[in-house]
Amino acid sequence: MDISSGLEDVYIKHTGLTSIDGEKGILRYRGYNINDLVEHSTFEEVAYLMLYGELPTSEQLRTFKNSVEKGYLLPDYVKQIISSMPREAEALSVYMTAFAAMSASESNFKWSPQTDKAKAAEIIGHAASVVANANRHSMGLQLRDLAPSDSYARSFLEAALDRKAEQGEVRVMDRALILYLDHEVPASTTAALVACSTLSDMYSSIAAAIAALKGPLHGGAAESAYTQFARIGSPEKVDAWFNENIVEKKQKLMGFGHRVYKTYDPRMKIFKKMATDIVKRDEDRNILLTAEKLEERGVEQFGAKHVYPNTDYYSGIAYRAVGFPVNMFTALFALSRTTGWVAHISEYNESEPRIMRPRALYKGPGPRDLAPVSHH
Amino acid sequence: MDISSGLEDVYIKHTGLTSIDGEKGILRYRGYNINDLVEHSTFEEVAYLMLYGELPTSEQLRTFKNSVEKGYLLPDYVKQIISSMPREAEALSVYMTAFAAMSASESNFKWSPQTDKAKAAEIIGHAASVVANANRHSMGLQLRDLAPSDSYARSFLEAALDRKAEQGEVRVMDRALILYLDHEVPASTTAALVACSTLSDMYSSIAAAIAALKGPLHGGAAESAYTQFARIGSPEKVDAWFNENIVEKKQKLMGFGHRVYKTYDPRMKIFKKMATDIVKRDEDRNILLTAEKLEERGVEQFGAKHVYPNTDYYSGIAYRAVGFPVNMFTALFALSRTTGWVAHISEYNESEPRIMRPRALYKGPGPRDLAPVSHH
Repeated sequence: MDISSGLEDVYIKHTGLTSIDGEKGILRYRGYNINDLVEHSTFEEVAYLMLYGELPTSEQLRTFKNSVEKGYLLPDYVKQIISSMPREAEALSVYMTAFAAMSASESNFKWSPQTDKAKAAEIIGHAASVVANANRHSMGLQLRDLAPSDSYARSFLEAALDRKAEQGEVRVMDRALILYLDHEVPASTTAALVACSTLSDMYSSIAAAIAALKGPLHGGAAESAYTQFARIGSPEKVDAWFNENIVEKKQKLMGFGHRVYKTYDPRMKIFKKMATDIVKRDEDRNILLTAEKLEERGVEQFGAKHVYPNTDYYSGIAYRAVGFPVNMFTALFALSRTTGWVAHISEYNESEPRIMRPRALYKGPGPRDLAPVSHH
Repeated sequence: MDISSGLEDVYIKHTGLTSIDGEKGILRYRGYNINDLVEHSTFEEVAYLMLYGELPTSEQLRTFKNSVEKGYLLPDYVKQIISSMPREAEALSVYMTAFAAMSASESNFKWSPQTDKAKAAEIIGHAASVVANANRHSMGLQLRDLAPSDSYARSFLEAALDRKAEQGEVRVMDRALILYLDHEVPASTTAALVACSTLSDMYSSIAAAIAALKGPLHGGAAESAYTQFARIGSPEKVDAWFNENIVEKKQKLMGFGHRVYKTYDPRMKIFKKMATDIVKRDEDRNILLTAEKLEERGVEQFGAKHVYPNTDYYSGIAYRAVGFPVNMFTALFALSRTTGWVAHISEYNESEPRIMRPRALYKGPGPRDLAPVSHH
């Protein structure tokens, strides 16, 4: 009996959501190239595409946006819970806590293809409201529900940052939402599927996904990459830093490498362009130039081994330029990915749902007698 | 490429914790038969055995109990969060929420064989405090930390039920804690492992496990079995109910069947004896007699197909006799299993931890061009 270490090459479901060509660096959602979707569609349209299989008509889009906007309102007890969290809590912990709490109203959850889609849309709305309020809470601002606007990205940004958002910022946020929306079945999505396979409710399943995303090997990558650029400090220090830490000390280069992509991640190129277009402050530009210089050195060193910068390499720079603190990066990733999680959960429940019950191979002491312990 | 539906027969790790002989109906923790452990050991001793590999000396046991008792104290913000939950919330949702919230103080979590064990003991203490307070909250009582006593079971019971516990009740609680402590890698434990495989923290990983346990196909079984007995109402109604619902309508008999056991679950026999010994009120005895009569009919009908009553069949009757409401059953299961979760998490992190990244097989539309949507 072999152990399927890391579940590598174990196929846990069929999917019609996302396909990845890791050799050529192509990512598609339901057959559409990610580059085309970012260019021509909004987050709401892509979310609809993922849940329903096709891009929406105007009428379908309107109905869908209404359902999402219902989710902008959070139950009072959830706001009270967010307010009770430590001010310095990671935004992702706040997000997980709020969703765990909302599972309380789902005791009689019944899966059905009809109600799941409405529930999914409401959850996408709740997610934006929770994550925006996690940022408000960390800034010491009073919590408030999101206000409907022309776009999900705008409603989210204006609540999270407590100010009007410029059109360029809204576009970056909207595209980031599309880029991180889904990526097949990484650990977080797998955790969601394991939870929903017991017929657990959708909020709980998302809490499970967030728990898995929280690990530095998964959702924490954008933060690690950004922190690395900040630590280096400026482009002219890249060479010395790289020689010392990567070449000599063999440390891991953050934001490089992916189990599936063997070339440039197509999302990384889009994030790089967005970051380049949006940075304004000198400080942000300095980080960007540092990252670019480091990318060159990294590709020189590792490109031959098919290790390239991944999607998390530039995303933090774009998020930071829009106005988010570093400890929000993973929560912003989670906000995008929530749509992928609910789409995978729906897809699993509509196919042949089966409880996930793997095995462990026993390798321990054989049968032994118990000598009763003398101290009681 | 085949889909590993339900991850059946996929081995995700080695374990030295639990071995099950499903044909003979034998369950062992680290080589010791579950019957011997229940007879001769306390929950604290068995928890130590699972975490450290051997039963403790008196000195080791004292140190371990001290670490667990540290966990009896909950941070204030966690108590505030429990108090904010709806009064009617399922206790398991309260448990998941509190653990998600405690992940906030674990941003800099570093796994290490040394610190993990101390953390695990504290978590076992926190778990009892959270679950006891979930019951207090549902009864409208003020929350309070657990008080150290001669046993974990007693400290938990007296806080949860807000009264002194009798020796017989403590013994039932202690044994129930041992019986549900671990069972290899069911969905909940798998969710915990997927989460911790990203180097996420222990609180988050347990929140993921609880999310999976919440499903009616997993942790909800004791509640379903008990509710079924209550619905039938009395032993003399069993035959007619069985003929109509199970034989004719082919409904599922709750509390029967298990993917691994093909005969009596050894834990079920112990729970049956405990329930028989502890029931006092006429109402509880009536449910017990109904369950026994139903067991007979069920085994007559399904025994030849190797379908027998499982551990959840009588556990609810024992819990109810001790004084817990039905909506606490799944949380009581979770409280026991928390030790199994932390033991599996530690074991995974000490072996060859690898991020769980399975695949999904794409079965959807081929590459297609995007006709930009006209409405914006």
